[in-house]
Amino acid sequence: MDVKELALKKHYEWNGKIEVVSRACIQSREDLSLAYTPGVAEPCLAIAQDETKAYELTRKNNLVAVVTDGTAVLGLGDIGPSAAMPVMEGKCALFKTFADVDAFPICVDSKDVDTIVETIANISKSFGGINLEDIAAPRCFEVEAKLKKRCDIPVFHDDQHGTAIVVAAALINAIKETCKKKGEIKIIVNGAGAAGIAIAKLLLQLNLGEIIMCDKEGAIYKDAPWLNAAQKEMAQLTNKNNKQGTLKDVIAGADAFIGVSRPGLLTAEMVSTMNKGIVFAMANPTPEIMPDEAKRGGAAVVGTGRSDFPNQINNVLVFPGIFKGALQVRASDITEGMKVAAAYAIAAMIPDDKLNADYILPEALDPQVARGVAEAVSAQAIKEGIARI
Amino acid sequence: MDVKELALKKHYEWNGKIEVVSRACIQSREDLSLAYTPGVAEPCLAIAQDETKAYELTRKNNLVAVVTDGTAVLGLGDIGPSAAMPVMEGKCALFKTFADVDAFPICVDSKDVDTIVETIANISKSFGGINLEDIAAPRCFEVEAKLKKRCDIPVFHDDQHGTAIVVAAALINAIKETCKKKGEIKIIVNGAGAAGIAIAKLLLQLNLGEIIMCDKEGAIYKDAPWLNAAQKEMAQLTNKNNKQGTLKDVIAGADAFIGVSRPGLLTAEMVSTMNKGIVFAMANPTPEIMPDEAKRGGAAVVGTGRSDFPNQINNVLVFPGIFKGALQVRASDITEGMKVAAAYAIAAMIPDDKLNADYILPEALDPQVARGVAEAVSAQAIKEGIARI
Repeated sequence: MDVKELALKKHYEWNGKIEVVSRACIQSREDLSLAYTPGVAEPCLAIAQDETKAYELTRKNNLVAVVTDGTAVLGLGDIGPSAAMPVMEGKCALFKTFADVDAFPICVDSKDVDTIVETIANISKSFGGINLEDIAAPRCFEVEAKLKKRCDIPVFHDDQHGTAIVVAAALINAIKETCKKKGEIKIIVNGAGAAGIAIAKLLLQLNLGEIIMCDKEGAIYKDAPWLNAAQKEMAQLTNKNNKQGTLKDVIAGADAFIGVSRPGLLTAEMVSTMNKGIVFAMANPTPEIMPDEAKRGGAAVVGTGRSDFPNQINNVLVFPGIFKGALQVRASDITEGMKVAAAYAIAAMIPDDKLNADYILPEALDPQVARGVAEAVSAQAIKEGIARI
Repeated sequence: MDVKELALKKHYEWNGKIEVVSRACIQSREDLSLAYTPGVAEPCLAIAQDETKAYELTRKNNLVAVVTDGTAVLGLGDIGPSAAMPVMEGKCALFKTFADVDAFPICVDSKDVDTIVETIANISKSFGGINLEDIAAPRCFEVEAKLKKRCDIPVFHDDQHGTAIVVAAALINAIKETCKKKGEIKIIVNGAGAAGIAIAKLLLQLNLGEIIMCDKEGAIYKDAPWLNAAQKEMAQLTNKNNKQGTLKDVIAGADAFIGVSRPGLLTAEMVSTMNKGIVFAMANPTPEIMPDEAKRGGAAVVGTGRSDFPNQINNVLVFPGIFKGALQVRASDITEGMKVAAAYAIAAMIPDDKLNADYILPEALDPQVARGVAEAVSAQAIKEGIARI
């Protein structure tokens, strides 16, 4: 049985991948009178008097809403809220498995930004954080920005920021492994959609060197006539020398290629023009270049999104820990600083003596990762004064 | 430590009374590839092709949303969505404990009918049923009616219908115990709010006899100038002889008093004018009449909402089983017929040889109840052609 068949079979067996259980044991009349009427009136009154008590007296302290509109699910596109649910339940199962965070899937049956925002804002008080998932661009930018304004809890679009953080972590270690000099590195980010832009923005925070973004049309430069609003903003922040040309033109001499684009866009010949190239080819399921091909072109370090090659760049390394860290200190936001802290924490999971070209990131299943990320993220939130504990 | 102190202490210990756990064991790369990418694409595609597959491949088959706006929480009134959460979590814990139904609390931060309806309708596809809770009247009627139109899953306002069903069950057995004749019974429903009206409507389905509703102003009759819209409807359906007068006037000769009103409204003297009176005094926490006082007035059977007297009329006997029954057969609605079936199923839990004036309802904690109710409710849904399995 192949993965597809087996996955379907398992899903029929699971009959839903999450379950809501009771933390209160209710076996006697006394139990009932404490967990429900009349005793339950007391925690209600305590929260009515001081809303922050909701973090202590309800599950808000450990609860994340995993929110989608079902419009950009995996590589499947706009399959709607019901069909998106297996992915959202899977995400919730990962939250619980890797960080003991309770996550609940909310699939919104609308593609209208304001409807999505209102719906989620209206139910957000019960949660300690909101993880946006698989919402098509550019809607995802607007939904995130508007929800952040409406809610006093972290709102985090994992497809953007989770990906950006794990790429940053991988890059930190690949730079170390290749002895490149921070501040002098030239990075090509290929693909200027939601993920590519989030990656470029986070890498700017790390001050690694120069970043040039590329899209189908080539390098993104100031006044390029084909830019959308988000790309225009990036044209101001990247490509300082305002280079124009194709990927092939601008990749010459680059230290790192980060692809969130399409299969086969990168050739061994292009890699051979790089400077001891770090190649992260994350198109799914077929990368921009296959690892053996990249190595044939002289790549020093290669990573993909796949689990069947070394250096899987997988945001399961990020989201459980970053939310755990935010929840632990009741953070009101997940800031750029917290994202950077998460990236360095993931990178630091690989001790110097273990680091090598095929081992720049920890295993997706390593339970230490979420703990380490959470600790770093909590500490950063406290430092920035947005912890509320 | 009294109940209040102990309940608060326990709530701090519980730190939330519900928890979301994973039903999928994710310990290896293979597990990850089945529960999440790439395998998870298969159940997504299956649901995209046939939305009813959501019942098999996601938790929709066993999942209820417990929805409130926090405006009529216990006796505490309008305490808002955050402060309502301990009650909603408690309700969810009871759903799981008594019927193995997964229930998740959704507290909506709005008092506007259409906003509440839109918010819930927008997220409703993930659920197999919607339990409305502690929403103030008359908003609760509108929210329920509009949501029923919008959703193809059961929408059930427990404060109305759960209460009505358990009262009906209690009355069925009290009538049996007192050897009264079905069809010839005179029933006073005192309190013409949401619960009172729901009780009267359901009792009409049982064809027990005559029903007269009373409110502060006295008996509800056609053309009474003080009726609201819902009460006007009831004036057409009840009080066939169009009697006017106070509770004291109309209770003379009645067989049953059902109080969902205020403490102390019923006196032993009034009970003494009844015909072997069945007295259900459900004002909380202090009943319309205390049981010993009702018995002094000659009551044959007395029930209250309290656990410290015999015959506790508690809707925990209803909601776990009625939703379980609806979910088991993917019912599109909870109909009047299913409510009647639930009432008779609860009543039937007491075998004839055990039935007595102090034992007309099963124990709230009896795990058999939900099972029996679910079976009867499923069977009725199939009979009515609204099962989808």
